[in-house]
Amino acid sequence: MTDQQHRDKIIAAVDKAFDEQTGFLADLVAAQTQRGQESSGQDLMEAAYKRLGLDVERWTLDPAELATHPGSGAVTVDYSNTEVVVGSTQAPTASGADAEDAGRSLIFNGHIDVVPVGKEELWTRDPYGGEIVDGHMYGRGVGDMKAGLSASVYALAAVQAAGLRPRGRVQLQSVPEEECTGNGSMSALLRGHTADAVVIPEPSGERVVGAHLGVIWCQLTVRARAAHAATMSEGLNAIDAAWVAIGKLRELEEKWNAAAASDPDFGGETHPLNFNIGTFHAGDWPSSVPDACTVGIRVAYLPDVPAEDAFAELQSCVADAVADLDGVSAELEKIGFFAQGYRLPQGTDAEAVLAGAHKAIAEAAGGDGPDELTRKLMAGYIDSRVFGCFADMPALVYGPLSERLHGADERVNLDSLRRVTKTLALFIADWCGVDEA
Amino acid sequence: MTDQQHRDKIIAAVDKAFDEQTGFLADLVAAQTQRGQESSGQDLMEAAYKRLGLDVERWTLDPAELATHPGSGAVTVDYSNTEVVVGSTQAPTASGADAEDAGRSLIFNGHIDVVPVGKEELWTRDPYGGEIVDGHMYGRGVGDMKAGLSASVYALAAVQAAGLRPRGRVQLQSVPEEECTGNGSMSALLRGHTADAVVIPEPSGERVVGAHLGVIWCQLTVRARAAHAATMSEGLNAIDAAWVAIGKLRELEEKWNAAAASDPDFGGETHPLNFNIGTFHAGDWPSSVPDACTVGIRVAYLPDVPAEDAFAELQSCVADAVADLDGVSAELEKIGFFAQGYRLPQGTDAEAVLAGAHKAIAEAAGGDGPDELTRKLMAGYIDSRVFGCFADMPALVYGPLSERLHGADERVNLDSLRRVTKTLALFIADWCGVDEA
Repeated sequence: MTDQQHRDKIIAAVDKAFDEQTGFLADLVAAQTQRGQESSGQDLMEAAYKRLGLDVERWTLDPAELATHPGSGAVTVDYSNTEVVVGSTQAPTASGADAEDAGRSLIFNGHIDVVPVGKEELWTRDPYGGEIVDGHMYGRGVGDMKAGLSASVYALAAVQAAGLRPRGRVQLQSVPEEECTGNGSMSALLRGHTADAVVIPEPSGERVVGAHLGVIWCQLTVRARAAHAATMSEGLNAIDAAWVAIGKLRELEEKWNAAAASDPDFGGETHPLNFNIGTFHAGDWPSSVPDACTVGIRVAYLPDVPAEDAFAELQSCVADAVADLDGVSAELEKIGFFAQGYRLPQGTDAEAVLAGAHKAIAEAAGGDGPDELTRKLMAGYIDSRVFGCFADMPALVYGPLSERLHGADERVNLDSLRRVTKTLALFIADWCGVDEA
Repeated sequence: MTDQQHRDKIIAAVDKAFDEQTGFLADLVAAQTQRGQESSGQDLMEAAYKRLGLDVERWTLDPAELATHPGSGAVTVDYSNTEVVVGSTQAPTASGADAEDAGRSLIFNGHIDVVPVGKEELWTRDPYGGEIVDGHMYGRGVGDMKAGLSASVYALAAVQAAGLRPRGRVQLQSVPEEECTGNGSMSALLRGHTADAVVIPEPSGERVVGAHLGVIWCQLTVRARAAHAATMSEGLNAIDAAWVAIGKLRELEEKWNAAAASDPDFGGETHPLNFNIGTFHAGDWPSSVPDACTVGIRVAYLPDVPAEDAFAELQSCVADAVADLDGVSAELEKIGFFAQGYRLPQGTDAEAVLAGAHKAIAEAAGGDGPDELTRKLMAGYIDSRVFGCFADMPALVYGPLSERLHGADERVNLDSLRRVTKTLALFIADWCGVDEA
């Protein structure tokens, strides 16, 4: 464990730079990194990595390469502006192992992409303003997860400012596509970036994520007969037909949730598996009976279930739903996430080291947050499965308190962000080891 | 009544020009006169009117003028390319009356606008190809109502080709906006175009429309709380909330249909009043709970009910539906038709003259169609209410057999179109009177 004097210096360095960190966070929010528009945000990350003296790699996602991996999500958009940026304290090697390392290596992974703002009139703050009110910063993506990205940068900066150098290689990753496919982290993995542990500062409320669910994005397309509204009975409305299929999917959702009762992680949760009807589009004319309807659905399912199995069950559910509807066809396609869930193994060194760092900061904060590191469950997707399922790395998801993720007035608690940044800085020192620079 | 020799000449002239007429009809179909893109179709109509030697007027719809009339539909699009074309056998006067007329005057009204194609893959024919197969021409708008527009042109052409000149003024109108607001015909009326009768060759299957329903287009906007799919319970899905409101509207629909049982015209019909959910749009991200949902609804209601009364009942229904849903708001706006229904009075001369012309042609056709003119009901909107309700003109809707209006593979029966063109030509002669030119 890092000696107390070094720890104190690291913590003081986080405090000293925290105003700068929140300014950086506001800049990240202002970058409006919607899907496919992450470049300005990646510019900020690249510049930050360079200020830390890191070796920077930046590359564009390659759909052909992604297609070679079963855990990649369906590519439905142009990736020509979709880039990953990584910065490493030592030039990473192709194998990801570095023979020179005396300490354990570490990846901080975070995603730069944000979900859409939604109806702007439901926001009481500028969604890209980074406004600070009562100790919270507001904005789309401020919690999910630009605060975490800022924490990874300023944690390493604090170690450096304390006059220390990590003994193991530290790599910071800023990836796109976490909100839709997970292909950003997948691309980093396919490029050979691994380490002895990965930390993802998603907004977990200063707890560590013990498991997250599998997630599939699919699109239900229902076709039916069109007709004039005056003769509605001639045409079965595609909206009504889609509603029938959705009803059957809701039944499957309940069946899966019933099965979840015996899950080792999610067994105690109420309705952990949500099927979300995220988009619903039908029709182009009020007086015509719609002949087609497309529904974007996000399906969550238990860890350990292969994505292929979950998807096959969804497809058969939809086919059954419309089998008796004359003139109606229904099709289910993959349109994004095709991701199995992940369980953090019990008893890893990584989790123990994180627990120590967390406790030190929580105690110093005077009981403001929970003292002991506790586990929580995430009823959705996190990129940890990329590293956990496919590279056997302990994947720790641990980040600040945030609220209203994906909703209006999303915000992050800045005191929490400060604590998390300190915890992550100590984690670097404790996990990788440090030498005086 | 026109003498038999003249009648025979008129009928022969329709037959002689029928290939030309179907060519003209195919050109009209190819013009793809979607809403706001009617100009190329209006060019064809203007050219046809000029070939007939008519005085042509062409003007752009004026939203400010339309707003002065309670029967105008809500203007939600740019009208700068939305034009009416009329052609008259004598220069129309501002009052619409023409002191020089020795015979009765007549307007043929038809709409040039067509509804969208819908899912093109559901068509087995090119929607704009005007293909003829087994005696039918296929295409979007071919029945609704470009066939009728062609009939009005070639009916007058046949009278002229027979060496005759109508004694009363004949005006041909080609209007936009019949599929959404009725503002094209309304604009023609506001410009002072009236006559002793109007004939609208909508695809009525060679029957005359005794009544049509009132129609309102409205948009339901439901707002709810957004959230991440993983915490769906935090946000009430706007789609689910909209479905609740639609359920209440369906109850109102049933109530109105129950009341329709005692309607003098629609009392014998099964479920004459359809509320059509024509468009449904919600959400922009599969993993976000949608915070808003917009639903385009076409509502039909009984003639004699003022549009204001129907709309007020719809608004109160929607407000009640969401009153108990926490955090949900719902709003109903006018987005098009705001039109009362129309009943053709019993016993008009116009209907009697049409019945005579119809019977003459039906008998000559050898029992191919129904011999006696019968009435039918139209469970939707027709522009006849513009002239019938607001100018007290007998408004005769009478046109060819067509199928799958607003659906895929819309088509018109060409034998029927030929008969209708003959009937309308005889109607000109019988209603207006003719002199040898």
